Amino acid sequence: MRVAVVGATGYTGAELVRLLLGHPHVKIGALVGHGKAGAPLSRAIPSLAGLVEGDVEPFDADRVSERAEVVFCALPHGASPPIVRALRARGRTVFDLGADLRLRDRAEHVRWYGPDEAAELASQAVYGLVELHADRIATADLVAVPGCYPTASILALAPLLRERLVEPEGIVIDAKSGVSGAGRQPRESTHFPEVGGGVRAYGVGGAHRHTPEIEQELSALAGRTVRVTFTPHLLPMTRGILASAYAVARSGTTAAACTEAARALYRGSPTVVVLEPGGCPDTLHVRGSARCMLSYTLDERTGRLLAQAAIDNLLKGAAAQAVQCMNVRFGWPQATGLPLAACWP
Amino acid sequence: MRVAVVGATGYTGAELVRLLLGHPHVKIGALVGHGKAGAPLSRAIPSLAGLVEGDVEPFDADRVSERAEVVFCALPHGASPPIVRALRARGRTVFDLGADLRLRDRAEHVRWYGPDEAAELASQAVYGLVELHADRIATADLVAVPGCYPTASILALAPLLRERLVEPEGIVIDAKSGVSGAGRQPRESTHFPEVGGGVRAYGVGGAHRHTPEIEQELSALAGRTVRVTFTPHLLPMTRGILASAYAVARSGTTAAACTEAARALYRGSPTVVVLEPGGCPDTLHVRGSARCMLSYTLDERTGRLLAQAAIDNLLKGAAAQAVQCMNVRFGWPQATGLPLAACWP
Amino acid sequence: MRVAVVGATGYTGAELVRLLLGHPHVKIGALVGHGKAGAPLSRAIPSLAGLVEGDVEPFDADRVSERAEVVFCALPHGASPPIVRALRARGRTVFDLGADLRLRDRAEHVRWYGPDEAAELASQAVYGLVELHADRIATADLVAVPGCYPTASILALAPLLRERLVEPEGIVIDAKSGVSGAGRQPRESTHFPEVGGGVRAYGVGGAHRHTPEIEQELSALAGRTVRVTFTPHLLPMTRGILASAYAVARSGTTAAACTEAARALYRGSPTVVVLEPGGCPDTLHVRGSARCMLSYTLDERTGRLLAQAAIDNLLKGAAAQAVQCMNVRFGWPQATGLPLAACWP
Amino acid sequence: MRVAVVGATGYTGAELVRLLLGHPHVKIGALVGHGKAGAPLSRAIPSLAGLVEGDVEPFDADRVSERAEVVFCALPHGASPPIVRALRARGRTVFDLGADLRLRDRAEHVRWYGPDEAAELASQAVYGLVELHADRIATADLVAVPGCYPTASILALAPLLRERLVEPEGIVIDAKSGVSGAGRQPRESTHFPEVGGGVRAYGVGGAHRHTPEIEQELSALAGRTVRVTFTPHLLPMTRGILASAYAVARSGTTAAACTEAARALYRGSPTVVVLEPGGCPDTLHVRGSARCMLSYTLDERTGRLLAQAAIDNLLKGAAAQAVQCMNVRFGWPQATGLPLAACWP
Repeated sequence: MRVAVVGATGYTGAELVRLLLGHPHVKIGALVGHGKAGAPLSRAIPSLAGLVEGDVEPFDADRVSERAEVVFCALPHGASPPIVRALRARGRTVFDLGADLRLRDRAEHVRWYGPDEAAELASQAVYGLVELHADRIATADLVAVPGCYPTASILALAPLLRERLVEPEGIVIDAKSGVSGAGRQPRESTHFPEVGGGVRAYGVGGAHRHTPEIEQELSALAGRTVRVTFTPHLLPMTRGILASAYAVARSGTTAAACTEAARALYRGSPTVVVLEPGGCPDTLHVRGSARCMLSYTLDERTGRLLAQAAIDNLLKGAAAQAVQCMNVRFGWPQATGLPLAACWP
Repeated sequence: MRVAVVGATGYTGAELVRLLLGHPHVKIGALVGHGKAGAPLSRAIPSLAGLVEGDVEPFDADRVSERAEVVFCALPHGASPPIVRALRARGRTVFDLGADLRLRDRAEHVRWYGPDEAAELASQAVYGLVELHADRIATADLVAVPGCYPTASILALAPLLRERLVEPEGIVIDAKSGVSGAGRQPRESTHFPEVGGGVRAYGVGGAHRHTPEIEQELSALAGRTVRVTFTPHLLPMTRGILASAYAVARSGTTAAACTEAARALYRGSPTVVVLEPGGCPDTLHVRGSARCMLSYTLDERTGRLLAQAAIDNLLKGAAAQAVQCMNVRFGWPQATGLPLAACWP
Repeated sequence: MRVAVVGATGYTGAELVRLLLGHPHVKIGALVGHGKAGAPLSRAIPSLAGLVEGDVEPFDADRVSERAEVVFCALPHGASPPIVRALRARGRTVFDLGADLRLRDRAEHVRWYGPDEAAELASQAVYGLVELHADRIATADLVAVPGCYPTASILALAPLLRERLVEPEGIVIDAKSGVSGAGRQPRESTHFPEVGGGVRAYGVGGAHRHTPEIEQELSALAGRTVRVTFTPHLLPMTRGILASAYAVARSGTTAAACTEAARALYRGSPTVVVLEPGGCPDTLHVRGSARCMLSYTLDERTGRLLAQAAIDNLLKGAAAQAVQCMNVRFGWPQATGLPLAACWP
Repeated sequence: MRVAVVGATGYTGAELVRLLLGHPHVKIGALVGHGKAGAPLSRAIPSLAGLVEGDVEPFDADRVSERAEVVFCALPHGASPPIVRALRARGRTVFDLGADLRLRDRAEHVRWYGPDEAAELASQAVYGLVELHADRIATADLVAVPGCYPTASILALAPLLRERLVEPEGIVIDAKSGVSGAGRQPRESTHFPEVGGGVRAYGVGGAHRHTPEIEQELSALAGRTVRVTFTPHLLPMTRGILASAYAVARSGTTAAACTEAARALYRGSPTVVVLEPGGCPDTLHVRGSARCMLSYTLDERTGRLLAQAAIDNLLKGAAAQAVQCMNVRFGWPQATGLPLAACWP
């Protein structure tokens, strides 16, 4: 099968190219970029020098559709709807890694993102969190691949809400991310000297746009509306997200019960590891890996449960998740072509 | 006035030496260390080569007392009580940066630290958070200088609890620290490759010993028992603590009101800066500074207030706080000899 | 084929395990460690949790030989000779990643390392730099896998000395390494706060033991004794070596000619990429990769040629190099099981 | 005395403001910036919130001259000549931290920088390396403050060339710099994920514009033309330069003799520390300090001398050097207002 990557020169795009190069069932047919179009890919992504030939191309729906049956779109918010639309019109299967198609409630989409340019596409899209929606992904031709923060947050909290182990009110998610999550576009806020050696929050007060995506999935699991207080932080590291989620434990809930619920929910998944109660997932242990590490700890003095999730934001939080969706879609084993062991240390 | 530093070759000790070297009213009389005793100080702390002469000495109560009227003890938990006792017996004013004397409720001390070796000292000690206890520090001969996490956490939450702006139940403190907070003793957990480029929690489930210290001070401010869920995280940076504290806002509470309450409480303090509502303190903005930066943000969707505090763990969280206590004790302006502007970037 | 790793819980060992897990022609038969023997491997190397079962075992020559035909030894200098000897006595093929067997001139070995405990083993060992010695590795049962600094230094300089493009006198190699090169044993010198955010040299004055290894190979290529001034530096990063080698260009030498010579020498190698003249290899572009990136630049004002090499010290500088040797030894394509695209960014 | 800083919102500017705020003999009269003009300084440099009032102003020669007798210009290359000219026309003493006035040989300036816009200013300017030119700085009204790489390189090599301890031919300087040296303007090459955790050279082949500045000073010391091979490297750290300079030792030269020559040349200087032979200056030991640490090591096998210098590029390499020049100019002790002890760790 031939695949294309649109947005191949960003960080997520670069990881998609790397994974697809090593995937046994696909061949790369086209690499599309915008700002670096016309340059050899090996200049845009020097780590791939000698491994991929050809230049970055500007987007052309016909040409891409001729060269690939499956297309991954890794574009900034707002840029993908016209591209996805054109590719779907040509019958291509699309895995969209942007935010445009993730929210089913389009009024909610408008509230967080502004005018809805993709309602009809969103209605066809399946939310691509394999651990929860594999059945639907298996037959989807349009997949909205989840954001990095939602992936970590939802995987951590899903078993707790599904099994009613915590109260659905008052959940606080304090998330810590590496800088690659902000993309490749240089800005003062991500300039090395302004980030190196320090930490700060951003998007405080419930302003981060990944919030409704987390709430959508948690609400579905809880069978009622769930609101979360979500605060992202920028850390002096390139990759990794650690989500620390705090919830009020229901009476009788133990860390062991939560751990067991998670192991039950994620049984058979090659991409989720649930540590022993009290364990502490480390983003270093998933750097370069498609896996998510989870753990559950109860503070018995306060009755507060801490659910932690560590992922590599560019892999399980983006590129590897998309490839995992493709694997499910085409009936290949979920981890085909995905690195499971981290590049540690 | 002559001063001595016991534990001069640790990170906090090194910062004490640096600050005291530049302090206009004191002169260093003795520098005491344990593991590096006998070595030239300029080898133990190469950044001070050419600025301080002489060797690191082993502790001798008589010799230290002869050479200094004021002694700073920067020792690991458990090591300072006999030293403090000997120095107090010789009439020296002592600023102890260890944990042994901080908790007034000694049953609580036993619960968290084990057998109480310092009850009679603790009963004489004043908790050295200048912003809250300047009056008592001004006449104290024994000061228990607060821990780094408590300093950040208490400064952030004090105005809110004092003014009843948040509920005292259900407070969650998610704290992020640089590695210097773990001290100078090398361990696998703080070996560069095991920390660089990643993040993980530790002391989860309410196990960190700074918890009761935070609760002691918050309870006093709230006029009732306060329990907090406290989770520390280790970040790939050397200095800095960012405490993100989440509390349920009382009806009618606004971020502006919280900001105002903090500005009122810390009015006149040279070491606290309260940012505008929604601001995000950055540990880089206080690195090398004796200051604490605070901010308050309300998530109106969830009614959750976020109080943030950024400090340099080795300065406002340790050495500068101790010197500030000394300044108060001897009637000098609080910021005498303290760096206020951060060494940025 | 069944393989074993002795020293599996160090950084190089962990990478060997990861690579061998993904290698299509081998199966891991035994994982041996010393300090962490008895612990589950997934605790010793948490990034492998769920991927490898069983405990770390202490070394037992018979048991290892029963379970594996091929053994990788990743042990500190001095520890491997008795182990290698026992395994060779049992007919096992051994890839030794330590320094004990690398120098052919054993007087030189004694000069740099002290008493020679492995003369007879060294006489049988082949130096495992595939790009130079593939023929001999193909039939070897004992391979001395090169050190990380020598790999980078030799690959950069080999084409220049072989083609007489530079003078063999006066070569200066200024090398920069990540901290994982110092191993997993914590020390004050590699404690995060003593390394993070700074740089320093070590082993200055020609004291680093990798020097004679570099000279051995360069002398062979030049057909005469070559002495180099080698200075390693420790950088605030976990992985990567950049070797900057300065040599006096011979009359008429150009950067293009050097580039061409390198491309000729490394033609067909999947693990060497030669950039255009004036290019700057970045260790980020080979992090997580088995490849080496080279470039050549001439300073025309001074007639000095700069040869640069970037590798991942744990991969091309250790684990991947060893696996590449195994591939050559058993007739598999050189890059079998090796990651070529870096985990970038 | 009133001082102004033009270019106050860059990194060097921010450090100038910090140092001048703490200087006992000056008062800040104006803070001028370009891109951030109109914003409160405490927003442009949040680390100074509460310490400096007022907004960043656009440049106006009359207004600045009214408010300050002394002006520091910290602007990118090419921007300062008209500003310096206007200020000198108004009789102000100017310390210019840009590159425009540093080269005395203006043909050389044209060769490296293009058309000469500042010949008449350059002819009046004194090169502000206090350790070499204090006499002339003492009476100068226009000082060209040295670049960061030249400061480290010249201080390391000056004693060797002055005392004829090394050959003037064939000097190689391999320099390692933190990212703040590239300024505050965000670019892809200094975006956190493109720098964090890796190292690369830049300006290779003798292309870096600091080269002629180094050669100018070394030639003067040697009494003949000196050419150096200079290669800068970008490291994953914010501050610090380590210059590793390699030179051919003259017959009979020892590391001890070099050390002694350096101590003699820098006797009485508060800002230079010469370590024992074989010592390794660490940029961490001068971070936040106005000092330079030097050391000398001889590789007896190759006859190559290694001269190392560590500085904080923003302090001894820029802001502190400028303030030190001012101190000399106005007859104050050289280290007035300068931090000597590093902010370590």
